[in-house]
Amino acid sequence: MTEGGKTRLYLYDTTLRDGQQTQGVQFSASEKHEIATMLDDLGIDYVEGGWPGANPTDSEFFDAAPKMRARLTAFGMTKRVGRSAENDDVLAAVLNAGTGTVCLVGKTHPFHVRTALGVTLDENLQAIRDSVAHVVSQGREALFDAEHFFDGHADDPDYALACARAAMEAGARWVVLCDTNGGTMPYRLAEVVDAVIDGGVPGGRLGIHTHNDTEQAVAGTLAAVDAGVRQVQGTLNGLGERCGNANLTALIPTLLLKEPYASRYETGISPDALPRLMRVSRRLDDILNRVPRREAAYVGASAFAHKAGLHASAILKDPTTYEHVPPEAVGNQRIVPMSNQAGLSNLRKRLGDLGLTGTEDQLRAILTTVKEREDAGYAYDMAPASFELVAREVLGLMPELFEVKRYRVTVERRKNKHDRMVTLSEAVVVVKVDGEKRLSVSESMDATGGDRGPVNALSKALAKDLGPLQDRIADMRLKDFRVRIMQGGTEAVTRVVIDHEDDAGRRWSAVGVSANIVDASFEALLDAVRWKLLQ
Amino acid sequence: MTEGGKTRLYLYDTTLRDGQQTQGVQFSASEKHEIATMLDDLGIDYVEGGWPGANPTDSEFFDAAPKMRARLTAFGMTKRVGRSAENDDVLAAVLNAGTGTVCLVGKTHPFHVRTALGVTLDENLQAIRDSVAHVVSQGREALFDAEHFFDGHADDPDYALACARAAMEAGARWVVLCDTNGGTMPYRLAEVVDAVIDGGVPGGRLGIHTHNDTEQAVAGTLAAVDAGVRQVQGTLNGLGERCGNANLTALIPTLLLKEPYASRYETGISPDALPRLMRVSRRLDDILNRVPRREAAYVGASAFAHKAGLHASAILKDPTTYEHVPPEAVGNQRIVPMSNQAGLSNLRKRLGDLGLTGTEDQLRAILTTVKEREDAGYAYDMAPASFELVAREVLGLMPELFEVKRYRVTVERRKNKHDRMVTLSEAVVVVKVDGEKRLSVSESMDATGGDRGPVNALSKALAKDLGPLQDRIADMRLKDFRVRIMQGGTEAVTRVVIDHEDDAGRRWSAVGVSANIVDASFEALLDAVRWKLLQ
Repeated sequence: MTEGGKTRLYLYDTTLRDGQQTQGVQFSASEKHEIATMLDDLGIDYVEGGWPGANPTDSEFFDAAPKMRARLTAFGMTKRVGRSAENDDVLAAVLNAGTGTVCLVGKTHPFHVRTALGVTLDENLQAIRDSVAHVVSQGREALFDAEHFFDGHADDPDYALACARAAMEAGARWVVLCDTNGGTMPYRLAEVVDAVIDGGVPGGRLGIHTHNDTEQAVAGTLAAVDAGVRQVQGTLNGLGERCGNANLTALIPTLLLKEPYASRYETGISPDALPRLMRVSRRLDDILNRVPRREAAYVGASAFAHKAGLHASAILKDPTTYEHVPPEAVGNQRIVPMSNQAGLSNLRKRLGDLGLTGTEDQLRAILTTVKEREDAGYAYDMAPASFELVAREVLGLMPELFEVKRYRVTVERRKNKHDRMVTLSEAVVVVKVDGEKRLSVSESMDATGGDRGPVNALSKALAKDLGPLQDRIADMRLKDFRVRIMQGGTEAVTRVVIDHEDDAGRRWSAVGVSANIVDASFEALLDAVRWKLLQ
Repeated sequence: MTEGGKTRLYLYDTTLRDGQQTQGVQFSASEKHEIATMLDDLGIDYVEGGWPGANPTDSEFFDAAPKMRARLTAFGMTKRVGRSAENDDVLAAVLNAGTGTVCLVGKTHPFHVRTALGVTLDENLQAIRDSVAHVVSQGREALFDAEHFFDGHADDPDYALACARAAMEAGARWVVLCDTNGGTMPYRLAEVVDAVIDGGVPGGRLGIHTHNDTEQAVAGTLAAVDAGVRQVQGTLNGLGERCGNANLTALIPTLLLKEPYASRYETGISPDALPRLMRVSRRLDDILNRVPRREAAYVGASAFAHKAGLHASAILKDPTTYEHVPPEAVGNQRIVPMSNQAGLSNLRKRLGDLGLTGTEDQLRAILTTVKEREDAGYAYDMAPASFELVAREVLGLMPELFEVKRYRVTVERRKNKHDRMVTLSEAVVVVKVDGEKRLSVSESMDATGGDRGPVNALSKALAKDLGPLQDRIADMRLKDFRVRIMQGGTEAVTRVVIDHEDDAGRRWSAVGVSANIVDASFEALLDAVRWKLLQ
């Protein structure tokens, strides 16, 4: 377990399984594919993909699983009492997914064995033994998730330990101690881990799985690591049932950057990969269309924001005065009030990257505009193309390319000639290019005759006829479309971010904001076209 | 310190001061008034109101401070070097607020004394001593917030301890050890508290103030309590600079409900007051117009939501199977959302709550429909009203209320007569009620003449004329509108969830899914109206 003087800790991600228990979260197979690949790139050791056979999406994901360095893991439960492991169809579906690693959850708390399963303690022990042995006999690496282990241990330590030992003796590579209900205090987690190690299951075979019901999932995980476990289970952004699972997005930087963990342990995540963490966290929120938590540890937009005046001025003298780690280490950045020097030098750097320069007054004017528009709902960190247009506008470097005189979009739902309800979207856009008025109309039918909605129709109409400019936008393709409702309720304002791509492999994002979702979309489309024309 | 065999722990709330350092948070004086009163009702011992003299709002708040049982505390800093405590105008402004308790922050870390203050270590010690003595000489209770205490102690334990002792010996009732940068691990906080107690400052004079930069503020606070401190500082909902302060909303239930704390300590919060905690948390979010965190420990809407099918069925047998405390204890409630993860027994219970029953075949048919539709993008755990309609449909209990023959929505952007660009949305909906066709048209103007977009126009038109049914939907109000784009790119499918409210205080959520965002919205609106008509 030791490499280069450090002990190896294994990271096990269950975003795709336990994370899917979050209210409102439902991944598609292709989203699972993308997230698994992201976790693999980061250097996570195990990626739990779901429960094959439990629902069509999980089965579909495993049928076309991504190729990864990480160990893809299928989740299931120990065989039911009254049939053999070989004849349990639920277990068979899990094994049929063909993953190299299989994790089976089972009971270890007498109360649950009797109440939830309605079987005897011995029957449950035998089910654990047989199920794990069956997985191992198929040449797979086996994990045993010991459900309610800590509650069980409080009630009947001998039985809980017997379950853990049964799994290990049947060949489980890892016995994962789960605080399923999330109510165990960190000091108590450590005591129980000690007892289990004393009871004959070495720390090198133990994992920890905590929940955040007392807001201590991260601390509980670290307490278990301190006590000797060598596998850590958690989820990105702390997704999960009820209050969520242990948050890997907080745990990973602590394990890599903070003492005593940094000197003591090694994980599969290299220091080079750590600065990708913030992007991974944001991408997950993007996929789920969740608002990123500003105050999230390490990766939140506010995590290195210094609002208090005394703090901000000290930060300018020396960032370590009010920062426990450098923000760059996790791909984040320091935020100080826009009006000060740090804001200016950041902006100068960003403009320089675009090949632009400006006077100090112009730079201040850009900062003011950006701040005003962000207060109104724009998000320029998500839409660099729109940011560039704002900067060029202030710098006087934005040519008058064309003018939109008006547009009209119609969405209609009615019966077609076959008496079936169909939806139809149609857009008319009127632009003036080189003094000449041009009128375009477009529907939003896709290849299969399906209606793709008003934004699609607008996008097609806008890109249909820009006269002499038409050649320069012909290869634009709408790739993604994200919507966020801000404020909520009757005051709601909608932010739309639209991604495009072209034949040269460029990919760019533009933003629009309005109380009217169609108008917000149109604004973003317009920015996207204008940006493309500048290339 | 002991009452009824338990040790008294004091709770100190700094929502109104440190909580205001949260990005985007700015309380008015009247909001501070309301929050202080709420904290007092709950039983908090100390309410820190702000820094008198630092800004007009804080001064205004203290000028008309609420009458409370809790000790209202004014915050400030130790006198500046080079003038006497009596002649320091900043300190004078703090004392002039006339509160019975005054908390002064001061440096205890040599690096900060030199870098941020630019004074000698002895000058700083003397400033602490003189400032605290001055507060005490005015007949006030004094607290000393020892800034950066843990970083200071790591660097120079003797100096940090000397600062703490200086404050105590000058008469401070409490010396509060602050982990200002939030980077200290809980075990280390406990070690330092031990060292300070060994160094002559008893636990009964010590407080703890932590930040959430490693997501361990709550755990760190409890570790310090375990080590002997008797005052706990924190904020409601964990507001605060960067990642926030220790979250009292999580700490309070743990101290009152969980062992070893429940048996060991007594706070100012009675068990009768605890069920008010959720309302207090939500009210604060209301005041700040923040979306409540669903996954918040104890008080979040998802904190007792059981989505996994196996969990949900066990919960029905005995809630303690998957709940570490009863939700009622903090004023929260159990949720068993309907989703494709759930099983038959969960469904039976859900239907029972709605006054519905069905055969096993019908129940299976409902589950199949729910699964198919969730695979297509619907999310019934977020939309119980739509779930009820699906169930009634399968059970044959869905009356034919009215039929939508067609609708048409137009969004137009053009110049108005003042040559300004305006957007206008208009919807026409044609329904058939009782064999009679009814045609309604509506714009989406709000009270200020602003356009609220196509969904708003559709909502108004649909609710405008349902003939004999009109009375029954007249009090419906659209409250919230959430959009999620699934898959992304050209395959994107949009899910819309819409919340409504009525005069009877009902609040219900419905879902629609389509490639066309307007059509998805219309489907959700339609479900919302149909659900309302069933009431």
